[in-house]
Amino acid sequence: MNKLYATIGSGNCFKAHLAMNQLGIAYETVLIDVLKGETRGAEFLSVNPNGTVPFLRLADGRGIAESNAMIWYLAKGTYLFPKTSYEEAIAVQWMIYEQTHLEPNISPARFFTTIVPSRRAEMETQIAGWQEKGAIGLARLNEHLKHHDFISGVGYSIADIAVYGYTHVADEGGFDLDEYPAVLSWMNRVAATDGYIPMNELSLAA
Amino acid sequence: MNKLYATIGSGNCFKAHLAMNQLGIAYETVLIDVLKGETRGAEFLSVNPNGTVPFLRLADGRGIAESNAMIWYLAKGTYLFPKTSYEEAIAVQWMIYEQTHLEPNISPARFFTTIVPSRRAEMETQIAGWQEKGAIGLARLNEHLKHHDFISGVGYSIADIAVYGYTHVADEGGFDLDEYPAVLSWMNRVAATDGYIPMNELSLAA
Repeated sequence: MNKLYATIGSGNCFKAHLAMNQLGIAYETVLIDVLKGETRGAEFLSVNPNGTVPFLRLADGRGIAESNAMIWYLAKGTYLFPKTSYEEAIAVQWMIYEQTHLEPNISPARFFTTIVPSRRAEMETQIAGWQEKGAIGLARLNEHLKHHDFISGVGYSIADIAVYGYTHVADEGGFDLDEYPAVLSWMNRVAATDGYIPMNELSLAA
Repeated sequence: MNKLYATIGSGNCFKAHLAMNQLGIAYETVLIDVLKGETRGAEFLSVNPNGTVPFLRLADGRGIAESNAMIWYLAKGTYLFPKTSYEEAIAVQWMIYEQTHLEPNISPARFFTTIVPSRRAEMETQIAGWQEKGAIGLARLNEHLKHHDFISGVGYSIADIAVYGYTHVADEGGFDLDEYPAVLSWMNRVAATDGYIPMNELSLAA
């Protein structure tokens, strides 16, 4: 069975959980406590030397790091996979955009605002920087979604799951999603897809 | 004909140039001067609203941003494309690793060390930070390449082109590549592939 090493509340881990749930792929979750430093411990580093979650161990023993790489593998050949070469390229484009313009800003802003609010005051300057850069990232996403119902093609795909992971919890990082109405409409379309499960329910079930 | 909007000396633009040269794909290059702010000008923003190079305009008018997305599209169906679903996922994994751990550190360190050395002194603290984080990124790449001749499978692919783009000019950012012997050996394997053209020659020909 697939084994997903994951941490509660992570938008990256949610991508893999959501894809496997929507595709009906069996898996077990191994919870890793990032706050306790478990991703830096010898035991986890022997699983994933890069020290990151999520990490997917396939039933045959092979491993995949990076959330977007694992949903690529899991979705191949299913309705969640991009339909043409061009859609594949646009999926890669937005997966990289998400990991370079959205996640690196939304995730730390959210971490020090909502997950470890005790450090919010000392991180105020950095949080403001992440919020400024993340707002630019969200504005460009909003422009794209003004003209597209879904990220990479006419239908819902892993490109949507990739971009949705952190975008849909951006409010927990102090972003006002009302400023991005096309993003909000798209988030509603994603949440209405078959087998959608909210992040909190997945975490609690893990 | 494919039209590549590119800037001289960019490791990201080199990826697209190298892939098209190795695949025998015809293209013309539109040179964009990033230092003169042309990526922020109205003319270029009408081409790519995200304001980044490289940007690929296909003959049919469709566009692709992000270097790794365009080489994905260009290589599909060719010998440069990953051979299995798992190799595809590992290619995505390392493309994202390159854009989050290598390029964001090597590129700015190189920019302020070699491309605009007049700003080197004022950027000393930031350069040291990029060099520290980039060294961790290169060390992990070195570990991977101790056990793999190429990034995502048994043969040379777009995953190698993606990771090679900035890694092979890391010395221009103050990184000592002699510390990463498996990376050096792999760089020699890449440079020996059919149709390989050095970055400087491509830039001059553009």
